[in-house]
Amino acid sequence: MADTDWPGCGKSLKGVILDMCGVLYDSGEGGGVAIPGSIEAVKKLKASDLQLRFCTNETQLNREAFVDKLKSLGFDISVSEVFSPAPAAVAVLKERGFRPHLLVYDGLLPEFDSVDKTNPNCVVIGDAAEKFTYQNLNEAFRVLIGLEKPVLFSLGGGRYYKEGDGLALDVGAYMKALEYACDLKAEVVGKPSPTFFQSVLNDMGLQPHEALMIGDDLVNDVGGAQNCGMKGLQVRTGKYRWVMF
Amino acid sequence: MADTDWPGCGKSLKGVILDMCGVLYDSGEGGGVAIPGSIEAVKKLKASDLQLRFCTNETQLNREAFVDKLKSLGFDISVSEVFSPAPAAVAVLKERGFRPHLLVYDGLLPEFDSVDKTNPNCVVIGDAAEKFTYQNLNEAFRVLIGLEKPVLFSLGGGRYYKEGDGLALDVGAYMKALEYACDLKAEVVGKPSPTFFQSVLNDMGLQPHEALMIGDDLVNDVGGAQNCGMKGLQVRTGKYRWVMF
Repeated sequence: MADTDWPGCGKSLKGVILDMCGVLYDSGEGGGVAIPGSIEAVKKLKASDLQLRFCTNETQLNREAFVDKLKSLGFDISVSEVFSPAPAAVAVLKERGFRPHLLVYDGLLPEFDSVDKTNPNCVVIGDAAEKFTYQNLNEAFRVLIGLEKPVLFSLGGGRYYKEGDGLALDVGAYMKALEYACDLKAEVVGKPSPTFFQSVLNDMGLQPHEALMIGDDLVNDVGGAQNCGMKGLQVRTGKYRWVMF
Repeated sequence: MADTDWPGCGKSLKGVILDMCGVLYDSGEGGGVAIPGSIEAVKKLKASDLQLRFCTNETQLNREAFVDKLKSLGFDISVSEVFSPAPAAVAVLKERGFRPHLLVYDGLLPEFDSVDKTNPNCVVIGDAAEKFTYQNLNEAFRVLIGLEKPVLFSLGGGRYYKEGDGLALDVGAYMKALEYACDLKAEVVGKPSPTFFQSVLNDMGLQPHEALMIGDDLVNDVGGAQNCGMKGLQVRTGKYRWVMF
């Protein structure tokens, strides 16, 4: 807990936002495994007076499939409680007239069904994992470098995350590669974007100081929340276990 | 020509350093093609009083194979005239006791034959092209993140280069990805590193103001040379044609 005011936090606390990967479950083959105690913790929070939302930078599955995965692991959770970058990006694309070239995981594509993707005037990248091939990265790069005003949206900006067999590069690393090649600054949609956290607060009808964000990422979860005026708490599961700070 | 002192440069000029890809030839399938006029230009420079060296960030072939390729395109050129990042990196690795994990193109591997690669304590990346797979990048990342003091050497830091069918991401983009993921700053071996340019000047026995660097890359060739006190001249072939500044 980075904030020394923590003992006084409980009085005003009205809502909790939970990161998912590394807090509720560890990813891996077959959908991953629930972290011991996390299913019960969600149950207790739901039984309490606190509001509860889930906030993830997961971009390998659309929300429906993602929630189904969490349910199969034993979590009591519904789509309306989950905030993820893809729907937020779709709203931004439509609002600003962008037609994306997508470099995302196949499982995420349905989220973009309603978006015009002809004659792209921007690039959207998510955690494409094994779809981050040399060819696909060059293709995204060529779209960007061919635009008069290149615009890159990144679904989250994470450095890495824990997979079943170790750590894997996250979308943020590939975002930096394209930023450097095209001499641009990407727009991050998802954590730690203040806009993204604010949309969760709006949904709960809470002020920032009334909410606590719990995650395993010091920058995207804890730092992002603190930048918005929320409390942030880092768990010692997920990537925390793998890299000591 | 960015330097307004150019008209006075000829008087003191004693040596010319030529970039290769995009200046002498365009890369592509089958080894690429010579740029019209470049074979004759090299001949004229060799017949003049000026010293001539070739300075490349080429890291897909070892120097012998690279020079053979240039010869087959019609250039009068020898291995001793060519300066490339891999031999410079080998010298640094040996001097500082580093055992590299290599993420480089297969053709470059012979350059590292004399280097101990067991139990790696650093990572070296070159323009690995299609070897920049998700798996290989994760592997390099895991080596770095597992080190107490992660050290990354990058053979050049270019953003992109021209291939036969368009532009391709260069090693610098992947360097930035690993820098971000591991929160480190890579050491660039090759252009635009001042150490690298100085080794070419030393070989010619010239002072910086006596040499002119000619290349198609505004940062790595022209800027790098100017940072060392040399003159820099940007040609309008190679990547210049593809991206207007």
